[in-house]
Amino acid sequence: MIMNKINSIISEAKSIAIMPHISADGDALGSSLALGIALKKLNKDITIYLEEDIPYIYNFLPGTELVNIYSAEIKKYDVVVALDTGDMKRLGKRAEIFEAAPITINIDHHTTNSEFAMYNYVQTGAAAVGEIVYQMIKDMDISFDTDISTCLYVAIATDTGGFRYSNTTSVTHQIAGYLINKGVDVAEISQRVFESTSFERVKLTGLAIKSLEILENGKVALVVLTDDIMNEAGAKEEETDGIVNLGRNIRGVEVSVVLRKKGNGEIKANLRSKSYVDVSAIANMFKGGGHKKAAGFRVENGNLEEIKRRLLEDIKEAL
Amino acid sequence: MIMNKINSIISEAKSIAIMPHISADGDALGSSLALGIALKKLNKDITIYLEEDIPYIYNFLPGTELVNIYSAEIKKYDVVVALDTGDMKRLGKRAEIFEAAPITINIDHHTTNSEFAMYNYVQTGAAAVGEIVYQMIKDMDISFDTDISTCLYVAIATDTGGFRYSNTTSVTHQIAGYLINKGVDVAEISQRVFESTSFERVKLTGLAIKSLEILENGKVALVVLTDDIMNEAGAKEEETDGIVNLGRNIRGVEVSVVLRKKGNGEIKANLRSKSYVDVSAIANMFKGGGHKKAAGFRVENGNLEEIKRRLLEDIKEAL
Repeated sequence: MIMNKINSIISEAKSIAIMPHISADGDALGSSLALGIALKKLNKDITIYLEEDIPYIYNFLPGTELVNIYSAEIKKYDVVVALDTGDMKRLGKRAEIFEAAPITINIDHHTTNSEFAMYNYVQTGAAAVGEIVYQMIKDMDISFDTDISTCLYVAIATDTGGFRYSNTTSVTHQIAGYLINKGVDVAEISQRVFESTSFERVKLTGLAIKSLEILENGKVALVVLTDDIMNEAGAKEEETDGIVNLGRNIRGVEVSVVLRKKGNGEIKANLRSKSYVDVSAIANMFKGGGHKKAAGFRVENGNLEEIKRRLLEDIKEAL
Repeated sequence: MIMNKINSIISEAKSIAIMPHISADGDALGSSLALGIALKKLNKDITIYLEEDIPYIYNFLPGTELVNIYSAEIKKYDVVVALDTGDMKRLGKRAEIFEAAPITINIDHHTTNSEFAMYNYVQTGAAAVGEIVYQMIKDMDISFDTDISTCLYVAIATDTGGFRYSNTTSVTHQIAGYLINKGVDVAEISQRVFESTSFERVKLTGLAIKSLEILENGKVALVVLTDDIMNEAGAKEEETDGIVNLGRNIRGVEVSVVLRKKGNGEIKANLRSKSYVDVSAIANMFKGGGHKKAAGFRVENGNLEEIKRRLLEDIKEAL
């Protein structure tokens, strides 16, 4: 089996670099840290190689002393392991280090994985790469401590939206239960990862609600975020993430839209549906894309009122 | 063992009434419905007796055809089972029916349970009564179907705040995993139970954010909800629940306060802390109470500015 082969390659290696995808999320980062801490116990020379700094909310995770942030200098490792990375592009500039290694491994759960490494293990049924790394650590007979367990718990909890998404399986919960027995502080982690927010983000939420329109007999929710609103809140661009859920979560709303109009004329649309409307089909009409219930598009130099009118017409037809 | 005794009493009974506490929450209701559906499979005559209508968000749960809402008429049952009910008061008017039964059973997980029935089973380590009812159904050898599993999943998921509170154990996750294998639709339930909200509640959130003050170097968050705000949002009193978390979740905030000032002069205070401040001690100074991290008080006829000033002084001292 390929997983046995990968485990034996790792067992024999001396220096190992572990790489999560660019803009590492909880699963990419948590899995990398857990694997790094575990392999340290086998006296491996471990580097967790990131493209960017660790995101603020994951700063508290154990194992960050193993992290190196990308620099132009190319180091050589016996083995490089890419985690949660669908294709080589998602390694960013670190692709150079990956390609320079004599042995490369790719461990992932994305259905779109391009199998870009010498050894590829893609388990699409896994809710998180954290589930796969859990099994690897078990198979390699490395003992689970609170640090490893905390990282894996964060990996799994974040990629399942806190055990709420449809990817959550019986196995997900079995593993979470196992990790909690190893001393994971559930309440502390949940507060840090799921509930912690910035004052600016809260202010942005307030202003978004102020601008919220409910249309089409309560079936459509629309928010327009202008530069004025962003400035008033003092919010960063990434803090607009999730604003679209404000409308989607309202009872009776089927389609929620956030239009982010920038001063340079660019308009970014974020679409969500609750049950039956295929918003990716709507986004396609504007040369965007996505999934059935989550999609988006971007217009370089658009007229807000015109885009809004066309978009609402398309949504109305799909309702 | 008392649990075996309870199971054998239930097995021998013909008519059984099941009672969750007044203002039934997800655990009380989900546990009651699950037990009701399970016992129906043993051909018992089952009534789930509620004090009030089923809350809107739990309307979708299976087994609601077994529910009776309280009426003055007193019916007789062979056995009455109180679920998730700390003391007789929490049965409301249904206490009469409880007391009229020849055999009474009390199944709960509250440390404060007053053991008010003939047979009491209080397992304080259980995150939810749903965990106890899960074990009862297993012990009685009743097969788990999707309906029973959905009700138990909702019971457990709600009482653990979606597997986020410190009461979440390894056993909680083991049971959740088992229930998911029986066909529980995790994404659908999560959307309905955790994410669904009213437009009025969203508007109230927006207005609360507008009134949000950050004080004491970012350590204190304060919201005042006036009748004007409630009216502008069109929100109901119970929709103020959770508004206090807006402030608490902001990074750096240690104490969050919501003051609800009603037109009749009444002021209700809701206090939350994040890590070290004991807000119950502060609430005590105003003749209120609660837990270390969640407390409150009520003043019959208070001056808002005066209460606010005193409260902020007390908080400042505790910081």
